[in-house]
Amino acid sequence: MNQKNHVNSFTLRVRYGDVDPMGFAYYAHYLRWFEIGRTEFLRELGVVYRDVEESGVIYPVTETYVKYVTPATYDELIEIKTRMDFLKRASLKLSYEIRNHESGAIHATGYTVHAAMDRSGRIVRVSEKLLELFGDDKQNKK
Amino acid sequence: MNQKNHVNSFTLRVRYGDVDPMGFAYYAHYLRWFEIGRTEFLRELGVVYRDVEESGVIYPVTETYVKYVTPATYDELIEIKTRMDFLKRASLKLSYEIRNHESGAIHATGYTVHAAMDRSGRIVRVSEKLLELFGDDKQNKK
Amino acid sequence: MNQKNHVNSFTLRVRYGDVDPMGFAYYAHYLRWFEIGRTEFLRELGVVYRDVEESGVIYPVTETYVKYVTPATYDELIEIKTRMDFLKRASLKLSYEIRNHESGAIHATGYTVHAAMDRSGRIVRVSEKLLELFGDDKQNKK
Amino acid sequence: MNQKNHVNSFTLRVRYGDVDPMGFAYYAHYLRWFEIGRTEFLRELGVVYRDVEESGVIYPVTETYVKYVTPATYDELIEIKTRMDFLKRASLKLSYEIRNHESGAIHATGYTVHAAMDRSGRIVRVSEKLLELFGDDKQNKK
Repeated sequence: MNQKNHVNSFTLRVRYGDVDPMGFAYYAHYLRWFEIGRTEFLRELGVVYRDVEESGVIYPVTETYVKYVTPATYDELIEIKTRMDFLKRASLKLSYEIRNHESGAIHATGYTVHAAMDRSGRIVRVSEKLLELFGDDKQNKK
Repeated sequence: MNQKNHVNSFTLRVRYGDVDPMGFAYYAHYLRWFEIGRTEFLRELGVVYRDVEESGVIYPVTETYVKYVTPATYDELIEIKTRMDFLKRASLKLSYEIRNHESGAIHATGYTVHAAMDRSGRIVRVSEKLLELFGDDKQNKK
Repeated sequence: MNQKNHVNSFTLRVRYGDVDPMGFAYYAHYLRWFEIGRTEFLRELGVVYRDVEESGVIYPVTETYVKYVTPATYDELIEIKTRMDFLKRASLKLSYEIRNHESGAIHATGYTVHAAMDRSGRIVRVSEKLLELFGDDKQNKK
Repeated sequence: MNQKNHVNSFTLRVRYGDVDPMGFAYYAHYLRWFEIGRTEFLRELGVVYRDVEESGVIYPVTETYVKYVTPATYDELIEIKTRMDFLKRASLKLSYEIRNHESGAIHATGYTVHAAMDRSGRIVRVSEKLLELFGDDKQNKK
């Protein structure tokens, strides 16, 4: 079944070690949260990234962007919302929202772009499983 | 003296704790390297960010972008090159390159955008010192 | 009610960014897990550390020890077990176990010692709430 | 030449992302600094840890201890002093001091114990090179 519109929600708490002297989550931690978001997004759809890497195709991040709206603070429960933006033959893009879990107030939005590569760094085709889940018809026929 | 074209170079080593199971520097560490780059860029021009924050104006990151070209690896010496992209009345943008220190091969490029705020989160004017260093004439007259 | 023997269990997943080139969780992350363990241990007993700090008494770590038994690996579910080892007038000690969530196989054990201080760094008495929860009778009477 | 009493000094700056809401370096970062200390200690004596791992013998941390004396703060230059405490047939212990670079005021002391293992996790003999550098005569004859 196509899952192009699937959204995963994952909740976690901002920890002491994540927070800077201003009392705000350090800006690099959002990338860690994006990683957690996409791992759980895929897991929910039956794709375990650990197994993916063991299959020989890796999906390194080639681009990332974050827009910081309001800072997340210590001990706050945040929600990471992840969805697939597009999946092409050899790349894919995921987008993310970080929100306060209770109020829904937005902390940040962003995306990551990934290339499909083998371990020697050569561009390869994304896995059949991912094409099935997220490919559009045109992509599948290419 | 206007320093709009100044470039700071800072060299550091990729550490064990920075590197992921693929043997590559984890993608979030690049944002840490950008932070080091901009801190040293400002220090070289006589601006100590610690003092800046104590003066009451803070410059939180409002946007960041990274393009990952080739992965940095364990124990590698990397060079962070930082420059000011623009400085406006209440915001500024810095851009960065991460390269192998010896070969100059590029690992990543990117930028951060910052807003000038007081501690209550209100937008304020960037400091006179920064305007002096990086403002263009039109900006200074606004 | 005295909670000297209370044990908190908190489960989390080892993330990509936590894992080193050997495929094992980097040794510093265990201290982060200890922090999560003690925060959740206290929360379960009605003590929110964020509020504790706001009350003016802080509990910085003065000593920590970790014994690493077998490495935790990427994407593994681990369990952090936390208990109070002792609580004295101006200090306390917590101990921790990190285990595989399913098999119970042990990854690490360790402890943290904390001093009670005010914000100027002076040693102060631990809070009444903590004495109530964890003090032994002799301690309370001192 | 025996280097049992050799001390390496390595200076680095406390970065924004290392500092917690109290304005102090987060306690887990000290373990990262210990890692930097031992890597530079070995490099100074001609041993590159990256090559060591590639040779098939790894030295995972089996124990660590930190005593926190006074907190290191944002933008401070710190000095990591590292020495070999002992080296036995299949294990070694390094000890560390973290000090303010200018005043020499002590922030923390501690140690790490390491086992010599092959990649399957079996205990093996430490390398000849390390025995030469740090072994005492009795150890070498065992």
